[in-house]
Amino acid sequence: MGFNTKLLKGVRHDAVFAELTADKLLPTVLIYGHYDVQPPEPLEEWKTPPFKPTIKGNQIYARGSSDNKGQIMIHLMAVKKLIEKSRNPKSNRKLPINFKFIIEGEEEIGSPSVGNLVKRYSKNLLKCDYLLVSDTEMPSKGQPSIDISLRGLLYAEVEVQSARHDLHSGLYGGVAENPAIVLSKMISKLKDDTGHVLIPHFYDSVKPFSKEELKDFSKLKITPSQIIRESGIYQTTKGEKGFSLEERLWTRPTLDVNGIWGGYQGEGSKTIIPSKSCAKISMRLVPDQNPNEVYKNFVNYMKKTAPNTVKLRFIRHADCLPYKAPTQNKVFDLMKKSLKKVFGKNPVYKGVGGSIGFVPITAKALNVPCLLVGFALPDGNIHAPNERFSLSNYFKGIEAMSGFYSNLDKKNRI
Amino acid sequence: MGFNTKLLKGVRHDAVFAELTADKLLPTVLIYGHYDVQPPEPLEEWKTPPFKPTIKGNQIYARGSSDNKGQIMIHLMAVKKLIEKSRNPKSNRKLPINFKFIIEGEEEIGSPSVGNLVKRYSKNLLKCDYLLVSDTEMPSKGQPSIDISLRGLLYAEVEVQSARHDLHSGLYGGVAENPAIVLSKMISKLKDDTGHVLIPHFYDSVKPFSKEELKDFSKLKITPSQIIRESGIYQTTKGEKGFSLEERLWTRPTLDVNGIWGGYQGEGSKTIIPSKSCAKISMRLVPDQNPNEVYKNFVNYMKKTAPNTVKLRFIRHADCLPYKAPTQNKVFDLMKKSLKKVFGKNPVYKGVGGSIGFVPITAKALNVPCLLVGFALPDGNIHAPNERFSLSNYFKGIEAMSGFYSNLDKKNRI
Repeated sequence: MGFNTKLLKGVRHDAVFAELTADKLLPTVLIYGHYDVQPPEPLEEWKTPPFKPTIKGNQIYARGSSDNKGQIMIHLMAVKKLIEKSRNPKSNRKLPINFKFIIEGEEEIGSPSVGNLVKRYSKNLLKCDYLLVSDTEMPSKGQPSIDISLRGLLYAEVEVQSARHDLHSGLYGGVAENPAIVLSKMISKLKDDTGHVLIPHFYDSVKPFSKEELKDFSKLKITPSQIIRESGIYQTTKGEKGFSLEERLWTRPTLDVNGIWGGYQGEGSKTIIPSKSCAKISMRLVPDQNPNEVYKNFVNYMKKTAPNTVKLRFIRHADCLPYKAPTQNKVFDLMKKSLKKVFGKNPVYKGVGGSIGFVPITAKALNVPCLLVGFALPDGNIHAPNERFSLSNYFKGIEAMSGFYSNLDKKNRI
Repeated sequence: MGFNTKLLKGVRHDAVFAELTADKLLPTVLIYGHYDVQPPEPLEEWKTPPFKPTIKGNQIYARGSSDNKGQIMIHLMAVKKLIEKSRNPKSNRKLPINFKFIIEGEEEIGSPSVGNLVKRYSKNLLKCDYLLVSDTEMPSKGQPSIDISLRGLLYAEVEVQSARHDLHSGLYGGVAENPAIVLSKMISKLKDDTGHVLIPHFYDSVKPFSKEELKDFSKLKITPSQIIRESGIYQTTKGEKGFSLEERLWTRPTLDVNGIWGGYQGEGSKTIIPSKSCAKISMRLVPDQNPNEVYKNFVNYMKKTAPNTVKLRFIRHADCLPYKAPTQNKVFDLMKKSLKKVFGKNPVYKGVGGSIGFVPITAKALNVPCLLVGFALPDGNIHAPNERFSLSNYFKGIEAMSGFYSNLDKKNRI
């Protein structure tokens, strides 16, 4: 397609970079995606081979069809369409903007190379005026949307140790500290029964969403039964007072124990007091929470709630900044118009509960808005067997995106 | 050695029975021990192979050296010595009493077959005048002792489940229940920070020890620093108000988490909300707490403290009655004399924090006193890596026990 291409070194897998400069005076859009996928297991649950894309009805089935190859293809095909037009001697249409693509191979393991790539290339290769990412979902079939927030992440691990080795629970029960109970008590003080986090200063830098944004969220009318059906949970939690389900999913920070262990886990009984007990504890963060601040407050609080009978050890794992789109930028209106024209329905703003490592770090470093426009559907079985992508969304996506790019000239810049 | 032997059917492992009747008119002692051991894990912490006994200095290192094989050997060797004397034509010493041994293979899993064995054999094979058990410890090197109480046990397992499968913590954090946090909260409500158990009716049938017994206990003057040195714990717990260390170790019931698990335990981070979390929870019981009652109260309380977002599943593992020795019987004085003669120091009464499943049930069924005489030492690493047994205690034990048996004729009977 005439792009200059380059591989950018990654920790585990290199990222693919490509650029096509039509005119240096035109705005540039950087389109992000990822070519890595989740493991296809359990294989026996697939009805078609996971790595042989298969069209059945209006769907294409394959691992990566929704997450993220099908969605990258929308942008490649939209750009291809514009390139073909510009090269047609009968048409008088030049390429409307410059295009860059970065397609990484480490998104599913938390994008460990993105920090370095952005540090190294933000002033040259990655320089752009707009970021565009299609790695999210529409709220339902036929309802286009723009995601205006991503939650960040802080992932830590704590070890509580009370003795040099495991002890006989009969000989020392009553005088020796039990680190599994100590850890349980510390965890029990991390959030109240509504899910409100009790770490001091945890909410200090949480910024409320605007009334307009919340109003848009509420249009989605997510219900507990819908979440129960989709997720397989038995019940939704009570939830923090005064926040809707949409707010709890996208605008509020959370705290979860991702793993806990200590002592004897085998069959039957072993009468020990374990010498240590550990937990992996992570928090989903929202703007403008900072993982460094949150980690500091978390560690201080854990130390404060621990008795002096134990020693604590902390490990800090992954982290990721939260992201909030600057919806006051008129490029969002242009995207809404472009989506409406093709889907025939007013697009809504919504949020994303998870994280996309590339987005906050790049948007901040380049100081540009990121348009998160998802074309996958909630029933697309992302990360699960029989992943699929709607062909009508695919073709509509190409049309909507080529329309958007055609109109994204200088007059729409920040 | 001339014994008649027999295997007695066990649920998992058969018990070894042996008897040597010198004269039906003589008293009979039944010596109990166990050949099963705790798992040797963690293997990497052993300095010598756990199942290859290794002598270093005055110690023999091996899993089971103190608990319980070394201590059974004391009695076998004491009896062997008496047999050899009785068979020596130059000596005029007949075997002073009749001997029976029962060495089971299920002590470490709570002696599940003992109830049936006692029911079946208490009137014949197991019939005796005295029970003798060396499966406990001396309070310190050189200080002989007789244990007058054993704590009982109730061992349960609870599983908390909130969803059919693990969930993405970004997509569902804020609306999905976290079973590891729920379990932590339930555990945190099981005892207060002094170790006092909060399950309703838990202490209802706890009987106080006599002033005399408590006075003997207090002679041991156990200090926190002694426990810290012996056990490898960093600090003793605060403890229930108004109870000495000895009372907390032997006369008070306890509650411990023996194991806890759920979710991701590997390296690094995995951003899931686990679908379930489990804990093994056991309680040490004291006279006259009953395991059935305690289990019922425990399950009711756990159900009461769980939110309606989760499903609970309970498993009941081992249990054991507590035991209290009839110290008014003069056989206890004879044992004190026999120990003093060899160890050169006045023996003391003390208690045992742990359980020996065979003792309470057999002593009750046969209506005989049980002499609990331990030769292991507090630094023997029972149930832990590098378990060991003192060779000088081994040889002194043989001498003291052969002396005791020599004097245990009819005039010392109840």
